[in-house]
Amino acid sequence: MRGTVLHGPGDVRFEERTEPKIIEATDAVIRTVATCVCGSDLWSYRGINDVPRPMPFGHEYVGVVEAVGGDVVSVRPGQFVVGSFFASDNTCPHCRFGYQTACERRQPIPGCQSELIRVPLADGTLVATPEMPSDELVPSLLACSDVMGTGWFAAVAAEVKPGSTVAVVGDGAVGLSAVLAAREMGAERIIAMSRHEARQRLAREFGATDIVTERGDEGVGRIKDLTGGVGADAVLECVGTGESMRQARLSTRPGGNVGFVGVPHGVEIAGTELFSTLIALRGGPAPVRRFLPELIERVWNGWTAPGRVFDLTLPLTQVAEAYRAMDERSAVKVLLRP
Amino acid sequence: MRGTVLHGPGDVRFEERTEPKIIEATDAVIRTVATCVCGSDLWSYRGINDVPRPMPFGHEYVGVVEAVGGDVVSVRPGQFVVGSFFASDNTCPHCRFGYQTACERRQPIPGCQSELIRVPLADGTLVATPEMPSDELVPSLLACSDVMGTGWFAAVAAEVKPGSTVAVVGDGAVGLSAVLAAREMGAERIIAMSRHEARQRLAREFGATDIVTERGDEGVGRIKDLTGGVGADAVLECVGTGESMRQARLSTRPGGNVGFVGVPHGVEIAGTELFSTLIALRGGPAPVRRFLPELIERVWNGWTAPGRVFDLTLPLTQVAEAYRAMDERSAVKVLLRP
Repeated sequence: MRGTVLHGPGDVRFEERTEPKIIEATDAVIRTVATCVCGSDLWSYRGINDVPRPMPFGHEYVGVVEAVGGDVVSVRPGQFVVGSFFASDNTCPHCRFGYQTACERRQPIPGCQSELIRVPLADGTLVATPEMPSDELVPSLLACSDVMGTGWFAAVAAEVKPGSTVAVVGDGAVGLSAVLAAREMGAERIIAMSRHEARQRLAREFGATDIVTERGDEGVGRIKDLTGGVGADAVLECVGTGESMRQARLSTRPGGNVGFVGVPHGVEIAGTELFSTLIALRGGPAPVRRFLPELIERVWNGWTAPGRVFDLTLPLTQVAEAYRAMDERSAVKVLLRP
Repeated sequence: MRGTVLHGPGDVRFEERTEPKIIEATDAVIRTVATCVCGSDLWSYRGINDVPRPMPFGHEYVGVVEAVGGDVVSVRPGQFVVGSFFASDNTCPHCRFGYQTACERRQPIPGCQSELIRVPLADGTLVATPEMPSDELVPSLLACSDVMGTGWFAAVAAEVKPGSTVAVVGDGAVGLSAVLAAREMGAERIIAMSRHEARQRLAREFGATDIVTERGDEGVGRIKDLTGGVGADAVLECVGTGESMRQARLSTRPGGNVGFVGVPHGVEIAGTELFSTLIALRGGPAPVRRFLPELIERVWNGWTAPGRVFDLTLPLTQVAEAYRAMDERSAVKVLLRP
């Protein structure tokens, strides 16, 4: 079978790899129906994260179960499944608290931009759809496996409630998904920060009531202006740089909440600043598995919006082109079909 | 009238000062019934915070109203009042959200270790008791004005709930108050970190179920041991050093909450660590005013425990001795009577 391997910065290849097999009795092997490129994949593609040796890449996937190990009871061959990007047993104390990305048996699922994927801890990681979905639903189901689940977590972590005033920092697929999550949770006002026209348009369609194009202190100033000097109740940080985190913190009203899901690069927070602003911070790798049943149900009932973050679809064989398009920001997010 | 003035590190004097008067129509002047020394006063006393010129000191107080300005409607001369350590109007957006320490008109109330105190924004700052309290209730009412309100906020910020497992870092008056707050909020298990026997005893009386004497990584290890390797749901940080904050963060289970109320000194938090642990942080100067009505009601109904943090009572004229006793940790907290 063939899969994506990152050989070094900018060097993505689709090549023959060893076929995944059941190794543990808790494994499943799935045949990929759709996969995609994540904003976080670009950290390695751009050489910001180290690529010490050729690495199978990708961690977002939907597919059809090919085989399961002897202990797997919740999914069976032939079912369409959505999985989260970390395998989890969904039974340990951390999973029961809803933090499956801190599962005691957590493990990454590398190499999902491929034709077949081995998923460890299948019972705790995969969720089957009620039946085989229509082709139209596939992008939205795929979005649930990472970006939509992550945007959802940002809103949960920032305690978005009906009536909240929310600001979203970042207009990538996760930021746009966070706008959508905030709307679904009843936010009254959603301020999207974006200077990219197509993304602004999608943000508006997803529920943004205001667009702020300024960044840094000017962006903070605009959010203060829009909120009568108070600041936002909840700020969803979906970038991960020191600058974006700073902007998020300063845009939050005293006592408000920042939910941050952008993987931090160069973020340092001074205790005195956090103390004086009285804001709460919660972030991390989204426990997507917690939200999958609810998100899948929403998609199954016709909520096709999350899939709209995919603005380019390519055959999986052209995965290198997908990385290029996202790197250049000519695409928000690229869906790949084997 | 006489009041406490800090002239420099270790140099506390009780001396003649100008008598406070009504300046704004929203002011009150109160005659002090009891005041005390705060752990945060010691930062200046020890020369860690700068003392550029002689400064009137103290910010915790209960007293009887002497005079009010023309706009004051909620308290009147002759009433016994408890106030918070920051004046707030209790009507601005931040106050309405319950963050009175971020009030748009916030101002400190300096020089409360004195015979008379001018309290700005009296309507938004002071809360009167139903009648003149018995002498026995005075220490507990005084505790509400800062340490108990601050310990309460630590527990609120860390989202302590019935059944929670809580760890408290710090065995000063605020830490002990935080233990008490956790118990009142229904925590099932309360781990107090203390190596001081008298404080351990008081922590037990306040509701601690376990005592951990180890610090740093060993202390974290003990909390992990006591919680089956999981970590605490809520950790209340009541010290403010880099070491104590680190210990608090590492003792929290993934997805758990740190409430921090120790004024940070030298605390830096790496975004990557916060991200990977999935914990939430909220802290700051406690909005005591939010909690005063509830705390006063509890004390009025016979809850004398918060006042037990005072283990030494001195005449206000001996305030220098009070600073010395707290600096040497021979007293947890000293109550001063004019």
